[in-house]
Amino acid sequence: MVFIMDITMPKKFVQLLVFNLTLTQIVLSGNVLIWPTDGSHWLNIEIILEELIQRNHSVTVLASSTTLLINSNPDSPVNFEVIPVSFTNSNIDSLIEHMIMLWMDHRPTPLTLWNFYKELGNLLDTFFRINIQICDGVLNNPKLMARLQKGSFDVLVADPVTICGDLVALKLGIPFVYTLRFSPASTVERHCGKIPAPASYVPAALSELTDQMTFSERVKNTISYPLQDYIFQSYWGEWNSYYSKVLGRPTTLCEIMGKAEIWLIRTYWDFEFPRPYLPNFEFVGGLHCKPAKPLPKVLWRYKGKKPATLGDNTRLYDWIPQNDLLGHPKTKAFITHGGTNGIYEAIYHGIPMVGLPMFADQPDNIAHMKAKGAAVEVDINTMTSEDLLNALRTVINEPSYKQNATRLSRIHHDQPVKPLDRAVFWIEFVMRHKGAKHLRPAAHNLTWFQYHSLDVIGFLLACVAAAIFLVTKCCLFSYRKFGKTGKKKKRE
Amino acid sequence: MVFIMDITMPKKFVQLLVFNLTLTQIVLSGNVLIWPTDGSHWLNIEIILEELIQRNHSVTVLASSTTLLINSNPDSPVNFEVIPVSFTNSNIDSLIEHMIMLWMDHRPTPLTLWNFYKELGNLLDTFFRINIQICDGVLNNPKLMARLQKGSFDVLVADPVTICGDLVALKLGIPFVYTLRFSPASTVERHCGKIPAPASYVPAALSELTDQMTFSERVKNTISYPLQDYIFQSYWGEWNSYYSKVLGRPTTLCEIMGKAEIWLIRTYWDFEFPRPYLPNFEFVGGLHCKPAKPLPKVLWRYKGKKPATLGDNTRLYDWIPQNDLLGHPKTKAFITHGGTNGIYEAIYHGIPMVGLPMFADQPDNIAHMKAKGAAVEVDINTMTSEDLLNALRTVINEPSYKQNATRLSRIHHDQPVKPLDRAVFWIEFVMRHKGAKHLRPAAHNLTWFQYHSLDVIGFLLACVAAAIFLVTKCCLFSYRKFGKTGKKKKRE
Repeated sequence: MVFIMDITMPKKFVQLLVFNLTLTQIVLSGNVLIWPTDGSHWLNIEIILEELIQRNHSVTVLASSTTLLINSNPDSPVNFEVIPVSFTNSNIDSLIEHMIMLWMDHRPTPLTLWNFYKELGNLLDTFFRINIQICDGVLNNPKLMARLQKGSFDVLVADPVTICGDLVALKLGIPFVYTLRFSPASTVERHCGKIPAPASYVPAALSELTDQMTFSERVKNTISYPLQDYIFQSYWGEWNSYYSKVLGRPTTLCEIMGKAEIWLIRTYWDFEFPRPYLPNFEFVGGLHCKPAKPLPKVLWRYKGKKPATLGDNTRLYDWIPQNDLLGHPKTKAFITHGGTNGIYEAIYHGIPMVGLPMFADQPDNIAHMKAKGAAVEVDINTMTSEDLLNALRTVINEPSYKQNATRLSRIHHDQPVKPLDRAVFWIEFVMRHKGAKHLRPAAHNLTWFQYHSLDVIGFLLACVAAAIFLVTKCCLFSYRKFGKTGKKKKRE
Repeated sequence: MVFIMDITMPKKFVQLLVFNLTLTQIVLSGNVLIWPTDGSHWLNIEIILEELIQRNHSVTVLASSTTLLINSNPDSPVNFEVIPVSFTNSNIDSLIEHMIMLWMDHRPTPLTLWNFYKELGNLLDTFFRINIQICDGVLNNPKLMARLQKGSFDVLVADPVTICGDLVALKLGIPFVYTLRFSPASTVERHCGKIPAPASYVPAALSELTDQMTFSERVKNTISYPLQDYIFQSYWGEWNSYYSKVLGRPTTLCEIMGKAEIWLIRTYWDFEFPRPYLPNFEFVGGLHCKPAKPLPKVLWRYKGKKPATLGDNTRLYDWIPQNDLLGHPKTKAFITHGGTNGIYEAIYHGIPMVGLPMFADQPDNIAHMKAKGAAVEVDINTMTSEDLLNALRTVINEPSYKQNATRLSRIHHDQPVKPLDRAVFWIEFVMRHKGAKHLRPAAHNLTWFQYHSLDVIGFLLACVAAAIFLVTKCCLFSYRKFGKTGKKKKRE
């Protein structure tokens, strides 16, 4: 029996996937510019760009001089354009640590909601200061911009968690495609992408709610949306000025983000609760998943001291091929911090999970897996070894967990087109057609009160009021005129 | 130059399509039950069932003893189960004629809206009396029901324009899939399928509006929705009783329709304006389209008298291979009544259109093609030969019409999976998994006021009111207590 513990270490290397291409579209050879986000986000982008290279595209990555996981493999045909920045790895590490501690101390409950979002707002300020260096490093860098202009790119693929990719695309005059896991409360998807999210059954991201809510949960959800919107829209204020300055006209971050041709969302209905979406949203969750390779014999590495209390049946490794282990026939359970990548590998291989979520979307991800009956959660703040053991025993011994994980796996594998192929199809579509305007909802041309038909409703209410007023006036007039005449007649 | 005139005659034969299957899903051999709608609707269903047969499924069609186009080809491997009905072809013909006249006399404008929908309501009553015979012919027919039970079907595919297919599926205990062009004002899709439709940019079906609306058009659109809903929900009253009687418990037509696993909508974003939808809605417009075959030499048929005034360059045919003609390189324009099937053949081959819409969705379809710049409309009620000639000259001589038609064609052909393959994929998915519950939005479990969060909003308003009340009380109390004390102190 093998348990995989995946709490801190993201996989370092993602191998090239040679997908059995089923699409018969004309594949042109084009130039793709990548605007990535570092850390685990990079793993998803990397898979996409490897696939683009397989399809004869030339790929250039815009990466800052300080990175965590983004690194140029010397054998890789990817071009790297380095953005000079002054922040260091320790700045990023401290940001991530700050973020983990925020969740540990203020994990959002109805009582901590306000504090949590206030603290998140502070964190976003730090993030802003790092991100703005990346933006300036490109947009205020005439030499780099000139090189990019010469690159005659057909499309820019951006992870919008690092802001400015859209702005670079606009400056280069090329269409752009987003790849995104989520934004808190879907603020970006809702306000900039115009995706509808009825609060009655679409849980706000980070709320840890599901699509089946009690009355009080629906109250919490309904409050979560405007609260998160408020935090983000305050944060956006600084960006709005920056974007207006760069473009030389008054604009907003959201307006520019709304120009994305396609939104590649890194989940699918095996993980997501069914919700309304738009034709330019494509759910490509698990695009990095692949069949497991047999486990090699001498590959595993060992580093550091083995704790004296460790049992004989547990081994420690500095790095392990997580996907191959999850696909091993003897794997019974997966202890995970609940990152989307790891969860998708478990879904792909049909392995039930014990979730020890730490921060960001992790508590939410585990809430999804719990709701779908494929995971048990343990509180990492308070857990004892007993708790972890019980959780493991539950997911291994209660057959429903394996059954549900297998069901999610079946759903994942039974799609008309594989997620990676769909992602690349739509990127290539934008290259072929210079956009995907036929998928863009007209909602983008409306103000918020027009979108919600508030002007129409106001007008109709005014009409009703005018009608009531007129009818009342007429009645009063008739009553006075004919009532008096009647009385007169009576007297006569 | 060839013009195709396609006003009254739907194609009689649709040939088997041997699609180049790109999907690698396990194809099981199963039993499919079809609940069709007659007329042009049948042509779409026929293509799907031919494809199902190609994939080794056994197909049974439930068809009434009186039909227009549904007929069993002696060479076809399709089983037909005949539903005994007493209505005649002339009943159906008169219903269709009534429908055409309704549109000719009352084509919905802001002034005729109310009359139009009232007349439509009357027409629906006639339709009800015909439809109920079909329902009774199956559900009150123990022998037929027993045969169907023995057929061990895996799925029922229903065109919900003929009501009761869902009920038959429920009685047989099998999942069902809808294939649908539209329902007026999307009443069925919105109320039973839970698809959102913001009135600000999603035009109500039959309104002839587009996604770019002026203020007054948005007012018209906002009124169209509840008006059409009202007409349909009155009509549904009779069905609610029927459904409750058959199932032996209080239910509604809409509740049962909402159980559809997948909604195959017979349009796509080449034709439709981008709008929100749900994961169990699949847009498979143009699934019947296919490449043109070279025009055969002796095939064309001639019937009837040739009018003396007919020019030498015009030929009359009783039936022509419309798709092959539209795909002919010399075809410059398509004069069409605007049925969805014909429009999709024109989109497929990139041919600009002159629309002479008559009834049902035809005016709306032409409005879509006009908005996309691929058609000109001529009013069939008032047109002169001059009008038609001018319209033809416009779409032929102004290059934008051909360019736009070609653009729509490119969009149509550039999809990850062909529409017919997607339709069949989801039917087979439902067969493999006995449903598609993972795509079903939780909105189905909410009442309408829960769905719109009216209870939550009410509660929050009550909280605010209570807070204001308490604060005011406290202030008044403090004022009285400390105000008086203050005065006292002052006096002292």
